[in-house]
Amino acid sequence: MKTADLIIASGEASADLRYASGFSTADAYIYIALADRRMILVSALEFDRARLEHKNGIEVLRDTDFTDLERPSFADIALGAARKLGIGEFRVPADFPLGIADRLRAAGIQVRPEEKIYFPEREFKTSEEVSKITFALRLAEKAVMHARDVIGKCSVNNRRELMFEREIFTSERLRREIDLVLTAGGAMPTGTIASAGIHAACPHDRGTGPIHAGEPIVMDVFPRMLDTGYWGDLTRTVVKGTPAAVVRNAYDAVRRARDLAESLLAPGIVPATVHRAADDLMARAGFVTERRPDGSYCGFFHGLGHGVGLEIHERPNLNFRGTTPLKGGEIITVEPGLYYPEWGGIRMEDMVHIVPDGARRLTRITDDFVIE
Amino acid sequence: MKTADLIIASGEASADLRYASGFSTADAYIYIALADRRMILVSALEFDRARLEHKNGIEVLRDTDFTDLERPSFADIALGAARKLGIGEFRVPADFPLGIADRLRAAGIQVRPEEKIYFPEREFKTSEEVSKITFALRLAEKAVMHARDVIGKCSVNNRRELMFEREIFTSERLRREIDLVLTAGGAMPTGTIASAGIHAACPHDRGTGPIHAGEPIVMDVFPRMLDTGYWGDLTRTVVKGTPAAVVRNAYDAVRRARDLAESLLAPGIVPATVHRAADDLMARAGFVTERRPDGSYCGFFHGLGHGVGLEIHERPNLNFRGTTPLKGGEIITVEPGLYYPEWGGIRMEDMVHIVPDGARRLTRITDDFVIE
Repeated sequence: MKTADLIIASGEASADLRYASGFSTADAYIYIALADRRMILVSALEFDRARLEHKNGIEVLRDTDFTDLERPSFADIALGAARKLGIGEFRVPADFPLGIADRLRAAGIQVRPEEKIYFPEREFKTSEEVSKITFALRLAEKAVMHARDVIGKCSVNNRRELMFEREIFTSERLRREIDLVLTAGGAMPTGTIASAGIHAACPHDRGTGPIHAGEPIVMDVFPRMLDTGYWGDLTRTVVKGTPAAVVRNAYDAVRRARDLAESLLAPGIVPATVHRAADDLMARAGFVTERRPDGSYCGFFHGLGHGVGLEIHERPNLNFRGTTPLKGGEIITVEPGLYYPEWGGIRMEDMVHIVPDGARRLTRITDDFVIE
Repeated sequence: MKTADLIIASGEASADLRYASGFSTADAYIYIALADRRMILVSALEFDRARLEHKNGIEVLRDTDFTDLERPSFADIALGAARKLGIGEFRVPADFPLGIADRLRAAGIQVRPEEKIYFPEREFKTSEEVSKITFALRLAEKAVMHARDVIGKCSVNNRRELMFEREIFTSERLRREIDLVLTAGGAMPTGTIASAGIHAACPHDRGTGPIHAGEPIVMDVFPRMLDTGYWGDLTRTVVKGTPAAVVRNAYDAVRRARDLAESLLAPGIVPATVHRAADDLMARAGFVTERRPDGSYCGFFHGLGHGVGLEIHERPNLNFRGTTPLKGGEIITVEPGLYYPEWGGIRMEDMVHIVPDGARRLTRITDDFVIE
């Protein structure tokens, strides 16, 4: 009996599946790889499109050819394929659906979830992938430049609120301005962060309500291109008018931490080393990370960065736990940040490509803080 | 030992989790429900936002409180919670990650995937859910009305191509016009279909290339609202100029099938009955469903409709296999279509709410076919 790789997922939800087959769908389908054959089993509804869009080397087959049942489930089809192809064991991704795995096991098929990652090669980008990711990043840059323009055009009312086109300028409006650029550029905006003031003190808060002069405005923009499925990731923080001294100092510390981290990144370096160097620099500048008596965190309490590709967060993780040296070929974000409920948050995020002699910065947009 | 419900997923990927907790994240977190307590276990990064956004009745706890490990996995945290809370069995959704399930089982915890659906009550919408879904539908209607306006403004060149703003009008441009309205309205466009001609003969083809006068243009628009997570779903087919007689006849057959289906829908009806009635009507009008010698299908070869809520496709399915009678409270699409490679495709999709005396049509937009 043979062992085969098996994925059952939608091409949109599973980056592994899209990586393997090149075919993206809203609905789930089946991918099977044997030593000498790789195939996808799709429904009648997807068959013609699958034949057009699949990667080279993939056979496109009808799922109904593997079962005689009138109403087959995915488990039925996978079982039929196992019998027809002489497969006794399936190697599956760790997030493979338990319900299907239990059905296959009950029918005598071994199902072994991959402990680590399913396609380790996804971590190391081909030149085609670098182009696709850079394309998405350029679109994010275009959106942030547009946002900078809009903030530049804002006036400030006597309550220190920004005003744009005779209305109070809010996080909601800023996010919409950004998302419209992403959509016009052929990307899917999936949760753009445009947060200011106290909201920005919470790194994953998307932002709501009026934006005020003097408070940092965090824009974290991560378009997924509709055609390729690849992501870009970019964060810039700006302030309209004059920030408080502590905010200015925090911004400088974050920028220097970003520069230091990018100068350290190279094949052979251990991610935890880079994370700690950035953290130490910001702590020496007076911005300490701590857990407060109410249980909340302040300072720098997220990872320094992460891989980006067909997933917005993928390997490698650039955090204090990362002990596996970089190899070269990764595309990762470098995104130090500081968050204090007293004044808000600051984050600056570049993307870099790890190349033989270090880290090539893919991000080109300005990191100027103050918008007059 | 107790039995508990367990979900480990991201609130964006798992409609069950969002339904249970009200809290949406890009990253995964843990939900546990005992007979008398329901809780979510989140990271430091999500804690503050979770406390703001969770549903009533949910306890928000820190995942680090359930393990002493420095680098806990989700399986470690779930195991820690099982021990602390005296849980011997977890009931999980069928798509629960196999890798985590195997870890829990190896530690002596029973893990039982739910055979059917995890929250059967999701099928029956509360009035608040009806409002949220209708809101998304209204936005889809606004986008299609805008698209109709744009198509109305197009001219036709001597190759029968539509022209807009001095450029050839393409599926890509039409999709962008639709997606910009969705984005401006606070929704995520996730794969708008704007297909014409031969592309429209493949129901899931999103469309590409120039659009010609006289050929049917299928617009399938399904925004997901960023704030609520609920979807709307709308399809309209239009033609610029004069269609061929067969296309006109097909359009009329699809519209009559839609009307017949909506008149049959009510509590107690079996979905297969409605699907077959729509299929029969179109067949009697001369539009037969068949598999051709090359293996491709033509006619009406997808389901008549599906539930819509926190997922774009959810229970109940309205197809020839559906034998469970409707109960009332469902929101479903009614979307007959006809597809022939000779002339393209036509689909018309409404949303209806199953109420005690029948089906209340939620969709209000015109179904006029011809745009001069």
